Amino acid sequence: MAKKYISIENLKFLLNEVFNIEEVLESPYYAETDTEAVNMILDAAVDISDRHLFPFYTEIDRADHTFEDGKVTIHPEIIKYIKAMGEAGFIGGSFSFEHGGQQLPQMVTAASGAIMSAANNGVVMFTGLTAGSAHLIASFGSKELKEKYTGKMLSSEWQGTMALTEPQAGSSLSDIVSSATPTDQGHYKLKGQKIFISSGDYEGTENVVHLMLARIDGAPLGTKGISLFVVPKLREDENGNLIDNDVTTAGVYHKMGQKSTPAVHYIAGDNDNCHGWLVGEPNKGLSYMFQMMNEARLGVGLMGAAIASAAYYASLEYANERPQGRKISEQSAKDKPQTFIINHADVKRMLLFQKSVVEGGLSLIFECSRYADLEMTTEDETARKRYKGLLDLLTPVAKTFPAEYGIKSVSEGMQCLGGFGYTTDFPLEQHYRDIRITSIYEGTTGIQSLDLLARKIMGTGGKSLMLLAEEVKKVTDEASTYDDLKKYVTALQEKLQDLQKVTQQLGGMAMQGKMELALADATLYMEFFSLIVISWQWLKQATVAKKAMVTGNPEGEKLKFYESKIHTMRYFFSYELPKTLGLMTRLMDKDDTLTVEVEKELIV
Amino acid sequence: MAKKYISIENLKFLLNEVFNIEEVLESPYYAETDTEAVNMILDAAVDISDRHLFPFYTEIDRADHTFEDGKVTIHPEIIKYIKAMGEAGFIGGSFSFEHGGQQLPQMVTAASGAIMSAANNGVVMFTGLTAGSAHLIASFGSKELKEKYTGKMLSSEWQGTMALTEPQAGSSLSDIVSSATPTDQGHYKLKGQKIFISSGDYEGTENVVHLMLARIDGAPLGTKGISLFVVPKLREDENGNLIDNDVTTAGVYHKMGQKSTPAVHYIAGDNDNCHGWLVGEPNKGLSYMFQMMNEARLGVGLMGAAIASAAYYASLEYANERPQGRKISEQSAKDKPQTFIINHADVKRMLLFQKSVVEGGLSLIFECSRYADLEMTTEDETARKRYKGLLDLLTPVAKTFPAEYGIKSVSEGMQCLGGFGYTTDFPLEQHYRDIRITSIYEGTTGIQSLDLLARKIMGTGGKSLMLLAEEVKKVTDEASTYDDLKKYVTALQEKLQDLQKVTQQLGGMAMQGKMELALADATLYMEFFSLIVISWQWLKQATVAKKAMVTGNPEGEKLKFYESKIHTMRYFFSYELPKTLGLMTRLMDKDDTLTVEVEKELIV
Repeated sequence: MAKKYISIENLKFLLNEVFNIEEVLESPYYAETDTEAVNMILDAAVDISDRHLFPFYTEIDRADHTFEDGKVTIHPEIIKYIKAMGEAGFIGGSFSFEHGGQQLPQMVTAASGAIMSAANNGVVMFTGLTAGSAHLIASFGSKELKEKYTGKMLSSEWQGTMALTEPQAGSSLSDIVSSATPTDQGHYKLKGQKIFISSGDYEGTENVVHLMLARIDGAPLGTKGISLFVVPKLREDENGNLIDNDVTTAGVYHKMGQKSTPAVHYIAGDNDNCHGWLVGEPNKGLSYMFQMMNEARLGVGLMGAAIASAAYYASLEYANERPQGRKISEQSAKDKPQTFIINHADVKRMLLFQKSVVEGGLSLIFECSRYADLEMTTEDETARKRYKGLLDLLTPVAKTFPAEYGIKSVSEGMQCLGGFGYTTDFPLEQHYRDIRITSIYEGTTGIQSLDLLARKIMGTGGKSLMLLAEEVKKVTDEASTYDDLKKYVTALQEKLQDLQKVTQQLGGMAMQGKMELALADATLYMEFFSLIVISWQWLKQATVAKKAMVTGNPEGEKLKFYESKIHTMRYFFSYELPKTLGLMTRLMDKDDTLTVEVEKELIV
Repeated sequence: MAKKYISIENLKFLLNEVFNIEEVLESPYYAETDTEAVNMILDAAVDISDRHLFPFYTEIDRADHTFEDGKVTIHPEIIKYIKAMGEAGFIGGSFSFEHGGQQLPQMVTAASGAIMSAANNGVVMFTGLTAGSAHLIASFGSKELKEKYTGKMLSSEWQGTMALTEPQAGSSLSDIVSSATPTDQGHYKLKGQKIFISSGDYEGTENVVHLMLARIDGAPLGTKGISLFVVPKLREDENGNLIDNDVTTAGVYHKMGQKSTPAVHYIAGDNDNCHGWLVGEPNKGLSYMFQMMNEARLGVGLMGAAIASAAYYASLEYANERPQGRKISEQSAKDKPQTFIINHADVKRMLLFQKSVVEGGLSLIFECSRYADLEMTTEDETARKRYKGLLDLLTPVAKTFPAEYGIKSVSEGMQCLGGFGYTTDFPLEQHYRDIRITSIYEGTTGIQSLDLLARKIMGTGGKSLMLLAEEVKKVTDEASTYDDLKKYVTALQEKLQDLQKVTQQLGGMAMQGKMELALADATLYMEFFSLIVISWQWLKQATVAKKAMVTGNPEGEKLKFYESKIHTMRYFFSYELPKTLGLMTRLMDKDDTLTVEVEKELIV
C-alpha cells in the first residue's frame, strides 16, 4: 500500500504562495481565521484521513454495501468517520457563524477536502452531501426549517442528500414529474421516484434529509415549474417523535467504483403520506439547486484531482522502488543490475503527465475557490461581478478537466505498474474504477460542455472570455520578466488568440441561427478551452516558483519542489498544450455536419 | 442486456469485399476450404458464442475464481465451453492438417475469434492460450513432443499456457532466472517461479502444459541464453500414468477485470523434481516464443476491438431506446416528448468514435492476418519478404491501437449511458474493466512502441515504411477515382509525408548516437503512426463501399451499411486524424530533453 496520497507541501504552496490566502483572510468576514488556524485545519484533515479514511480505502470497497429487507448496510468505519467529522466541526466549515459553521474561506475547505478525498473519495461523499444540502436549507430555507435541520445535519446526526434524478428524466431536469400537492397544514404531499441518490439511506444514521425537486400541482412545464422541498425519511409528529414519512428505499444500484456510497432508488408517497416542506419560493427550486450544484461541481472536480493524486503517489512510489530493465544506453550491459523504472523515459512521461494533471487541476480549483471567496467578501460591486463572472465561466472547466484528464491520469498511473497495476494487490485498480464516475456526476461532460459554450461563453456575448484574458495577462506580464519563461508566455498568448478565433467562429454560427451546429462539438471545445486554462495555471505556478528561486535562494527539498514545478509546466506546454492543434482543426472545420445532420440510421 | 455484440455483416464485408478472401483461398494450401466453408465456420463461432459465451459474460465475472487448499476453481460454464471448442475443432483451426488442424487462413480464425472474444473475452483466453502454446510445440518441438502434447491440447483435454513473466523481471525478459539443469534421461530439471500465467491452473482440466522460458545452466546472460521448455503440471511415468511434476500453484492474482481467467503464480522444482523438455535448440527459446507472442499480440488487438465492439452495440442499443432531453432546436418545446439520445450530436459523436475504433481496428487486424496468410502461401520469395515486412511492421500497431483506443472507445460507450453505464445493471462497466488489460498483455504499450520505432522502423533503415507507403498508394490511387473521396486522399498523402518527416528526424537523432532521446517519445510516435495507419484502413473500406454503391446499386439495409462506412471514414478523418498535429509538434521538438535527462528527484 502506498504511504502518500497527497502533497501537503503543494497545498500550502497553492494557498500561501500562488493564491495568497492572506489577502482573503484580511476581509473582516474572516477576522477569526488566520494562517495559523488554516494550518491547524489542514492538520486536522490529515488526522481524520489517517485515522478514518486512508486505512480503510480498500476494505470498504471490497465490502460494498448491502440491501436486505429494505435496509441498506454500509461499512461500520464509515459511520465512525461521519461522527468524527461532525465532532470536528468539518461539515459546516465554510458556513457562516450564524448558520453554525466555522466561516472558513472556500480555499481552505478545498484544501482540507482535497486531503480527505485523496484518502478515500467515496466515504467523503457522505459528509459532502450533508454539507451541500444543509447549505441549501441555510441559504434559502425558512427560519423554522433552518432550526429543525441544519444543526442536526452539521453535527452529522442526520444525513443530507440531493434528490434530483428521476428514472425517465436523467440529465433532462425539465422533465421531472415528482409532484407536490399543497395542504393547509404548512406542508406539501410529495409523490415520486428518485434514483442515484448517493448516501440516500443507510443503517446508522438517525435520519436522512432529501433536498428533493418536484412540481407543485399546476406548475408550468419545464424548468420554471420546479420547486425544492425538504423531504425527510422520518418526520416529527406533534410530540416531536420521529415517525415514518413514507419514503421507501426500493433498491440500491451497485456500481463499478465508489462502492462505499450506496446510490439509492427511493419512492416517496406510495401510501400518500409523504410530507415535504417547500424551500424558498415555489417554482424557483432549480435556481436554488444550482447553488448546490455549482458547489458540488467544484467538489467533483476536486474529487477527480484528489483520486488522481492518490494514484500518482502510488505509482511514483512504485516507480522509485521497482527495478526493471536497463536504460537504452545501457542495453548491452547485461551483467549490470536492473535500473529503477523511474529512469525510463516513458515512465517519466507517465509520471509527469499525472503530476501535471493533479497539480494543474488543483490549481484551477483553488483559483475558483478564491473567486468564490472574493465574490462573497468584496465590497466593490464591479469587482464582485468580475469574480462571479470568472467563477461561472470556470466552474464547468474545474469540474471537467480533473474528471476527464484525471481518468487518463489514473490510467497512466496503473500503466506504470504494468500487470501489477491491474491486480487487487495495489490500489490503482480501485482508483481507476472510482474516478470514472467523476465525468458523470453533477452533469456529464457533455452537459458541462454545453454549459460552458452555450451559457457561459455565448450567453455572456463573449464578455466572460475578456475577463479570462485579463486574468491570463496578469500572469503573462509577470512571467515575461523571467527570460526562461518567455517562450511559454508567447505560447500561451498564441493559444489565447486561437481560443478567440474558434469562439468567434462558433459564435458566428450561432448568430446565423445554426445553434445545433455551433454546439455540436461543445465537448471538443471544452477540451480545447481546458488545455489553455490549465496552461495558464501552470505558467502561474511556474512564475511563482521562479520568483521564489530568484529572490529566496531556496535549497535542498525546497529548491527541488520549485524546480519540479517549472519542469512540470514545461511538460504540460510541450506534451499537452499542443493537443489544441487537432481540436482547433476540427472546431474550425465549418463545412462539416457530421454529427448534426447524420440520420441515426447511418450509425449501424 | 444488449442483444448484439458484433456485426457479422461487417466481418463478411472485411473478408469478402475489402480483403478478398477468395484470393487467399486460391492457394493450393487452402484447397479444402471455400467461401461456403468460411461461412459455416462463422456460423459455428456464433453458435458457440450464443450457447457458451455471451449468456454467461456477467455471471462468470461475478463468480471470479477461487484459490483454496492449493486448488483453483473456475466457473463450470468455462469448462463446458472449452470442451465444446475442442469438439468443434476450433482450437487448431489454423493448424496444418499434418498437425491435426483445419488448415484455415488466419483471416478466418481472426473473424471467428472476433465473434467469440466479443461475446466473452476472458473465457476465450483459455482456448487461445492452448492454441498458441500447442502451435509452438507443433512448429519447433520434436516428433515425440508433438505426439505427446498437440493432440491432447487441440482436443482441449489439456490446457496450454505461455510462461514468460517472472517476479523480478517483468517485461525485461533478459533478466529471467528460471534454471534448467540437463540430465542424461532426455529431460531437464526445471527450477523457478512464474507469475501472471493466465489459465495456468484450474480444476476441470486433465493437465496443464506450460511453455516455459528458462536458462540452461551456464547459458549466456541476456536474451541469447534463454531456452524454451515444455513443463507439464503432470508428467507421465514409465507406465504412462500421469504423476505430479513438482509444479505448485502458489497463488492467483485477483484482477480488476477478465476475472474469468485466473492469473497464476507457480513454483517449479521446489522439490527438485520438475521435469521439462527442451523445445528446439538450446538458447533459441525467445525467438521461438516470439512466434507465439506475435500471434498473441494480434490476438490481444483483436480482443481489444472485440470488447469495444460489444460495448459499442450495447451503447448503440441504449442510445436508440432511451428518451432524454430535446434537440437544441427544440429546447423550448417543453410539451413535446423527449427525443432519443441518439439524436443528440454529442451522443452521435461518441457512437461514431466507437464505430471508427472498432471497425478501423478490426480492419487493420484483418490486413495483418492477410499478410500472414500470403506470407505462408506465396511461392514468390520477394513477395513473401514483403508480406513479412509489412506484418512485422504492423503487428505492434494492430496490438496497440485497438487496446489504447479501445479503452477510450469503451469509456465513450459507458458515457452514452450516463449513470446507468457505471452500474452493474449494464455490461459496460465490465467491458470497461476487461479491456483495460489489453494495453498491458503481451508487452505494454511502451514496449510495443519501442518495438515499432526502434526495431521495425529504425531497425529496417526505413525500408518497412516504404513498403507501407506502397500499400497506402494502392488505396489512394483507387480512392482518387471517386470525386468525393479526393479530399481524404489528399489528407492521407499529407499525413504520410508528415510521418516520413518525423521518422527522418528521429532517425537522424539515432544516427548521431542520441538513441535515448530518439526513442524517448516512442509512445507518442506509436499514436501518431496508428492514426495514419487506421486512416488508411478507413479510406480502404470507404473506397470499397463507394465502389459497391456506384457499381452495384445496393438498396435498403445494404445501402445504409455502405453509407455508414463512408460516414465513419469521414468522422475518423475529421475528428481523429487531426490529433496527429499535436503529436507531430511534440515529436518534432528537437530541443527538448524533458523526459530523458530530468533527474528522478525532480519528479516529486
